[in-house]
Amino acid sequence: MAALAMAIYFNGLDERETSAWTDAMMRSGVVLDLAELGPGRVDKHSTGGVGDKISIPLAPAAAAAGVIVPMIAGRGLGHSGGTIDKLESIPGYRADLSVDAFKSVLAQVGCCINGQTDELAPADKRLYALRDVSATVESIPLITASIMGKKLAEGIEGLVLDVKVGRSAFMKTLDDARRLAESMVRVGESMGCRVVAFLTRMEEPLGRMIGNACEVQESLETLRGAGPEDIRQLVVALGGAMLELSKGVDEGAGQARIEAALDDGSALSRFERMVAAQGGDLAGLARANEGTVISANTSGYVAAIDGLEVGLAAVSLGAGRATKDAVIDPAVGCRVEAPVGAKVTAGDPLMTVFHGAQGPPPSATVERLRAAFALDGEPREPAPLILDRIS
Amino acid sequence: MAALAMAIYFNGLDERETSAWTDAMMRSGVVLDLAELGPGRVDKHSTGGVGDKISIPLAPAAAAAGVIVPMIAGRGLGHSGGTIDKLESIPGYRADLSVDAFKSVLAQVGCCINGQTDELAPADKRLYALRDVSATVESIPLITASIMGKKLAEGIEGLVLDVKVGRSAFMKTLDDARRLAESMVRVGESMGCRVVAFLTRMEEPLGRMIGNACEVQESLETLRGAGPEDIRQLVVALGGAMLELSKGVDEGAGQARIEAALDDGSALSRFERMVAAQGGDLAGLARANEGTVISANTSGYVAAIDGLEVGLAAVSLGAGRATKDAVIDPAVGCRVEAPVGAKVTAGDPLMTVFHGAQGPPPSATVERLRAAFALDGEPREPAPLILDRIS
Repeated sequence: MAALAMAIYFNGLDERETSAWTDAMMRSGVVLDLAELGPGRVDKHSTGGVGDKISIPLAPAAAAAGVIVPMIAGRGLGHSGGTIDKLESIPGYRADLSVDAFKSVLAQVGCCINGQTDELAPADKRLYALRDVSATVESIPLITASIMGKKLAEGIEGLVLDVKVGRSAFMKTLDDARRLAESMVRVGESMGCRVVAFLTRMEEPLGRMIGNACEVQESLETLRGAGPEDIRQLVVALGGAMLELSKGVDEGAGQARIEAALDDGSALSRFERMVAAQGGDLAGLARANEGTVISANTSGYVAAIDGLEVGLAAVSLGAGRATKDAVIDPAVGCRVEAPVGAKVTAGDPLMTVFHGAQGPPPSATVERLRAAFALDGEPREPAPLILDRIS
Repeated sequence: MAALAMAIYFNGLDERETSAWTDAMMRSGVVLDLAELGPGRVDKHSTGGVGDKISIPLAPAAAAAGVIVPMIAGRGLGHSGGTIDKLESIPGYRADLSVDAFKSVLAQVGCCINGQTDELAPADKRLYALRDVSATVESIPLITASIMGKKLAEGIEGLVLDVKVGRSAFMKTLDDARRLAESMVRVGESMGCRVVAFLTRMEEPLGRMIGNACEVQESLETLRGAGPEDIRQLVVALGGAMLELSKGVDEGAGQARIEAALDDGSALSRFERMVAAQGGDLAGLARANEGTVISANTSGYVAAIDGLEVGLAAVSLGAGRATKDAVIDPAVGCRVEAPVGAKVTAGDPLMTVFHGAQGPPPSATVERLRAAFALDGEPREPAPLILDRIS
């Protein structure tokens, strides 16, 4: 398998081969049949970024608007967090539901966010371990098959992809991201799943919060119709496409329905029901402590925040796993106090670090986080968040 | 390792990398220090052909002419036989000598033909098993490192390579054979070993005999100054180069000394001493039985004999191993009765098959062997045996 991965890394796979490879990944385990839940089953997948908690408000918002969302999400990898790690900061939250329990939550709530199991596409996990040690992770057809093999095993009819682009993303360039998105769209469509892919900018963290419990808190704000603008913008855009795939409504109408679900409390209510159905107790969610404030040394406008550096620092503080068996501290995280575009004067807070049991961050981490903020003499035009849409 | 082999298969290695890789193979086990035996230690290696028993007369002939020949030889692989399998048809012959016993035979006789041990270049065996199943055997740098890593671990100062070219050889084209030969010469020289490579034609079997005991019989004929012309020609050419590397004599003088050793009985005497020192009893060597004669269906001149087909048929009859654990029947083999250039009329013998315990060959094998002989209306010009010499 390692040798084959290397051969594919160098020679690629054509469209037919990529579909066959994806099909083999998908069929290496159980392929869910969720037809009994009715039509319009659509999931969303992100290639991973820093502060990317979009799935948490998105799944219940889409469900509130009528989409059935059988979401199987991942854990943190490298500098990017994982939806399951975030949700598990809710005491009692079960992300290891059996297929029957998964279906039951879906039937009851309309959405369920469960963890990956060994039942779905188990070959992908084995292959990924080999790719990881053989430096063959960065291969468009192998990434395509890894993502799509798992997603297509979920018994979905439609999929919205959020392909992140930039320094803090897996895909560093727009060209690479576009190639991956096109490859995934083609494979999905060839296998009978409607796919829409968004290319979205991933430089600074998404939203203000980076961590686990604190990203759930920020998701709750979004579900209350508030929260950071970039989070809401992505939830609405991705949710609109989910509705388009699920219900055949046009994009604008779909987006309006997502906005309504965020604003009228129906999305929040779905989320609360989903968490309860999965055993979670939102009242027990760790709340951000006072933490350590990192201040600006100079004055200026925040021109950029290096999300990769912030993500790596968060992992080092215990918000992610530096090694496979490391234990996450759900309370650890950080909040951006001066987002891109903000005017700061020396001494103003740039970021607050919420530390867990291990105490305040080491000074090297503080310096690393401070250095992640680039200040400039003039305010910059904000860059667009959504770069393209491929279908 | 499989992934790395695949990466090398596609991307190659440059000269420095090939040397480093070869060095790593060599140093994965014991590197013999044979300095105590004195200077002028030269071995010969063939990339393998059908009927290629050259090492058996060559090592003692070179030793009789003053070369120290610490030869570590292989077993049959695919359609090509192995020197060790052939020598083990001599009852009692030990090819699993310890390093000390190997040195002792060398000190006593001047030559020793021992089998590969796990002590020398053990990584090569592990890597070869992976290359075999990952279709990465056919890579010039990997072949170079595999051959040279083992040879350079023998504590030699010079090496003569016989790179076989043609349908019955591992290298099918002169270009590929030349590239491999040049790569091995460069790596050897970069690691302090003088190397001369011959490119020699491998279409029809070498000599008349194919099998194990019968190839030792044919080697004995050569050691008595007789035997087939092509065998003698190669022994003299390769032996001349061994003397050149060992003693600094010029090529013609070296060849003359090999011819003399074959003709004056000194090579035969060395061989008998070597076999005795390694526990073998030449008197017990299986003699060719009457066997099954395969006759020509038509008349004409033998234009070609397909050595690949003959080699595969010999393996199927028990002269080689179709599976790793198969047992060789040393008495099984065949003799070419009508060599290339011979005029035959329908009914004349083309080949005799010496069958072992399992009885006469199945009719499919008889037909396969008959079909290996191509007859033509006109005699062809004999093709040259030695195609080039690279140093």
